[in-house]
Formats: sequence, C-alpha cells, structure tokens
Amino acid sequence: MTNLDPAAGYVVLINTFTVDPERAEELLNLLYRATEEVMSRQLGFVSANLHISPDKRHVANYAQWRSHADIEVMMANPAAREHMGEAARIATSFEPIYYELRESHAAAPVG
Amino acid sequence: MTNLDPAAGYVVLINTFTVDPERAEELLNLLYRATEEVMSRQLGFVSANLHISPDKRHVANYAQWRSHADIEVMMANPAAREHMGEAARIATSFEPIYYELRESHAAAPVG
Repeated sequence: MTNLDPAAGYVVLINTFTVDPERAEELLNLLYRATEEVMSRQLGFVSANLHISPDKRHVANYAQWRSHADIEVMMANPAAREHMGEAARIATSFEPIYYELRESHAAAPVG
Repeated sequence: MTNLDPAAGYVVLINTFTVDPERAEELLNLLYRATEEVMSRQLGFVSANLHISPDKRHVANYAQWRSHADIEVMMANPAAREHMGEAARIATSFEPIYYELRESHAAAPVG
C-alpha cells in the first residue's frame, strides 16, 4: 500500500513504457524484481507501484523518492543500471518524467 | 491523501500532458477545478492526484475510478467534456492511458 500526500514532499517519477503485448508481463516481472532486489534497498526509496494496461501495450511505474539526490545515487548503482538497461531493451520506448505531487483529492469513504 | 492498493481493483487513468511552461499552472488549476467541481461528484470517482514537473513542461493526473463503466458515464457528462476540451486546448499534447495497479511496494516507515 502506498500513500499519495502532497505534504510529504516526495519526488514522483512516472515512467511510462510502451511494449509489445507479448512482452508486457516479462517487463512487469523485471520491474518487480528490480524493485524487490535493488531499488527498495536504496537510501531514499519510498515506493514503487507497477501498472499494466488491459491491452498490455503499456506498463507504468509510479515511484516515490525522498529527494533528487537519492535518485542520483540510485542511478549510479551498477545493479540498478543493469535492471534499467534490461527494461529499456524489453520496452519499445519509455518516458521517465519527474514530478511533484501538487494536489490529491480523494472521495470520502462510503460506508 | 490517496491510497494505492492493488487489492482495491480500481481502474487507474494516468493522463500525461505536455504543455508550454508558461501555461502549466493554468492547466493545473483547470484540472483542479474540474476535479473539485465535476469529477469528484461523479459516481465511481475514487481520487485525482495532480502533478507538475519542475521544468513545468509536464502535468500529470493520476486518477482512480471504481470501474470503466463509471468512467464512460463521466465521459458523457457535458460539464466533464467541457473541462476535458479546455485542458486539451491548453496542452500541446496529452496521453491518457488506462491501467490496473498490479504491485505496490512501499518502504517500511522509518522512525
């Protein structure tokens, strides 16, 4: 479970992958292993949330990090780079974009 | 505050807008008003989470809905369509993609 809270001040990295549908589950699995084995052990890691589109043409990782400095350290980690390179080879394209979360509006829970 | 929980089974709509940096805040504000005034009052709305990139070239909405059927009803709502059309005119491009959330890995809270 992940919380989205603008007050937390995290860096959000949304990485959207385009992929051959036959390879979408392979890519998802790779990102899952990268998260479990490498990313989640890095200083400043907050969360990774892996998504797949129903048509299996897109995979997205919604990741939160404590700071850009922590992301830079992660990017320099050889194991992280290896996983990112493998993801890049499986995908046909990918677009990582950094954001801040400005507003979060959630419906009131319904009983 | 928004929770991401694969077990909830929500439909996730990540809409990534590319925008002239001078108009990024205007787009964010429009999406904020659309959420407050229209989207959040639609049946099946779960959450909207508005992001802006530090370079102000991208705005993203990470929205959760209860079902695709609820999204279709929202898409047919004239007020929602008006807001979406206005957002499309402010942005230089946008890419709405539907997903399911498959995995969520959050770091253990640190004391």
